[in-house]
Amino acid sequence: MPTISKKGHKMPASPIRKLVPYAEQAIEDGKHIYYLNIGQPDIKTPEVAINAVKNSNIDILSYSRSQGSETYRKKLAAYYNKHDITVIHEDIIVTTGASEALQFLFSSIMDPEDEVIISEPFYANYIAFSTATGVNVVPAICSIDDNFALPSIETFESLITPKTKAILICNPGNPTGTLYSKEEIEQLAALAIKHDLFLVADEVYREFIYDGETHYSIMQVDGIEQHAVIIDSVSKRYSMCGARVGFLVSKNKMVMETVLKFAQARLSPPTFAQIASEAALDTPQSYFDEVIHEYVERRNILIAELQKIEGIKVAKPKGAFYCIVELPVKNTDKFAQWLLEKFDIDGETIMVAPANGFYSTPDVGLNQIRIAYVLNKESLIKAVHILKEALKIYKD
Amino acid sequence: MPTISKKGHKMPASPIRKLVPYAEQAIEDGKHIYYLNIGQPDIKTPEVAINAVKNSNIDILSYSRSQGSETYRKKLAAYYNKHDITVIHEDIIVTTGASEALQFLFSSIMDPEDEVIISEPFYANYIAFSTATGVNVVPAICSIDDNFALPSIETFESLITPKTKAILICNPGNPTGTLYSKEEIEQLAALAIKHDLFLVADEVYREFIYDGETHYSIMQVDGIEQHAVIIDSVSKRYSMCGARVGFLVSKNKMVMETVLKFAQARLSPPTFAQIASEAALDTPQSYFDEVIHEYVERRNILIAELQKIEGIKVAKPKGAFYCIVELPVKNTDKFAQWLLEKFDIDGETIMVAPANGFYSTPDVGLNQIRIAYVLNKESLIKAVHILKEALKIYKD
Repeated sequence: MPTISKKGHKMPASPIRKLVPYAEQAIEDGKHIYYLNIGQPDIKTPEVAINAVKNSNIDILSYSRSQGSETYRKKLAAYYNKHDITVIHEDIIVTTGASEALQFLFSSIMDPEDEVIISEPFYANYIAFSTATGVNVVPAICSIDDNFALPSIETFESLITPKTKAILICNPGNPTGTLYSKEEIEQLAALAIKHDLFLVADEVYREFIYDGETHYSIMQVDGIEQHAVIIDSVSKRYSMCGARVGFLVSKNKMVMETVLKFAQARLSPPTFAQIASEAALDTPQSYFDEVIHEYVERRNILIAELQKIEGIKVAKPKGAFYCIVELPVKNTDKFAQWLLEKFDIDGETIMVAPANGFYSTPDVGLNQIRIAYVLNKESLIKAVHILKEALKIYKD
Repeated sequence: MPTISKKGHKMPASPIRKLVPYAEQAIEDGKHIYYLNIGQPDIKTPEVAINAVKNSNIDILSYSRSQGSETYRKKLAAYYNKHDITVIHEDIIVTTGASEALQFLFSSIMDPEDEVIISEPFYANYIAFSTATGVNVVPAICSIDDNFALPSIETFESLITPKTKAILICNPGNPTGTLYSKEEIEQLAALAIKHDLFLVADEVYREFIYDGETHYSIMQVDGIEQHAVIIDSVSKRYSMCGARVGFLVSKNKMVMETVLKFAQARLSPPTFAQIASEAALDTPQSYFDEVIHEYVERRNILIAELQKIEGIKVAKPKGAFYCIVELPVKNTDKFAQWLLEKFDIDGETIMVAPANGFYSTPDVGLNQIRIAYVLNKESLIKAVHILKEALKIYKD
């Protein structure tokens, strides 16, 4: 039988999705599951986006341009300028989700064995994209005891080798909810410029910032133009994860020309989804105000309820809709599976994301989980109650 | 300034899309262009597909499963079985276009420096996907003088090295329109089994077969189960190139498990497009009968008109909607550009695809173009007339 590739063997299975078979079995067994494991919000997609597709007049569902529709990119440029990110439409390439933007970028700026420094814990699929392109991840380790603040700039600098090509951050962060300050961003930018590296920021949660804080984008730093690349997406902003529309934003023309070659090879991003995404830019501010209000309440309830549980540790997130929780168990992989297979309260259980998959360092985060607070408050309270009762009887 | 990757430098610019700036200038200059260069049919998308999206009731545009929606995959399995390809839904992964299916497959079965044998000329983006994954293309050279028939099986066998992992064909072929016989497919299958290789067939034009011929799929060969992978797409079948929905079909479980890991990393294929694609499976047969009738007429007119031009050579295609035409010019890249920049008849000109990009062998196909007969008959006649008059005055 012909064999698969070494790279294929190395590819990590999704740490979030590998529990799916247990969840399916639990459902088959009649259990109700509260899904805390995945960033699929229960927030309604703006009607203006859905209606744009429903009211579209398409005779031939044809390719769009490889870089995305021109009208959409122009409206996107206006969106960024409103957020103090000074770009024109030529600085934007529309991709099939932020996932594709990251893959194009990794291939465009790094060869196999090159290194990317990533603040850890990080979005698990960064590992997958690194493996797919043969790039090595060098973790800049953050700690729950420090609210997942960035390591000192000296620590970052000590990780740079001749093979380092880029620094990648997620701001605000998945899975930590950490928001980086203007000072932290400026320090990273100075480091990238000093060592001639790319500074890549996944800013898909830009709008999800709480407690009166503001988001400071890497592209707001003076002099960073040739180094900065923003990765972005409509998925969370407008609760339209299924659209599969993201963007790559940079003023570095070589990067954009190279990314475009990868984009041309896959022809174009999806047409229906671009129609919805373009219309989503007209979503009224009231929608976001309500959404942010809702997430703040959820976060507050979640953190308050979690803090009542003995033996757990949790950092209060300032953005996005995730938090990392340290549990008094040895291996959350097994605990998450046990919750689905063996535990319920009145037929209800929870699904959580074991956090080990968010670390590249072996055996770190084994006692942590990521919780996505994408459920309504009542469900969150019930879910945390289930977690609390489960911890009382679970034996490692 | 930080630099892009070696791979990024190597990535080919799309041979079809690189003429776009000249076309845009021509339009700005007031010219009308007949587009013979790209496989974007002018055929209407089935109403049943468009209406399914327009009538959908979506509150939250959420992720689908990474392998595609279950109901869609089940209906797809029924489609394949109707075409004598015996599969179940678990043998199918829905991808974001055939492009993504090819990329996932290349990454799943080949490491950098591995080799894939491809019958040449071939779909230009096979080079792009190979470059993106570091895989080397070994061409099995076909000739216009032989109607682009496959080389002898001995020739294929002589190309196999210890690094060979797969043989890739496109059947019926883009850019040649060549349809492979049952005997040719069986010989290739036997070779793949003998040398433990994957046999990959891009069958996106399966339904576009003319003159009473029938399509013979690689998965109809007995004993090929562990070796065969079909790449497929809704783009041409239902004239919905903008959907970005394709599939990878295989009964090899290791391949499917590995491809799924790549699929999980990008989360899911687009949701609206899957709704349209699932509904497209209910397209009435009358739609296809009309479409095939239309393409046969277009092909007949195109070939008849082309054969009237002195000094050109063209093979009559048996499938798909492309043909390779050899012109009495030295370099069709320059000729194609000249057509857009310098030539018109009453303000009209044509855009053609220089064929060199469909060859990996250097300096081959320089005097050839690919014509996609995706325009109506009247436009095709005008377009060939423009080509004829242009050739009269063009000087290399």
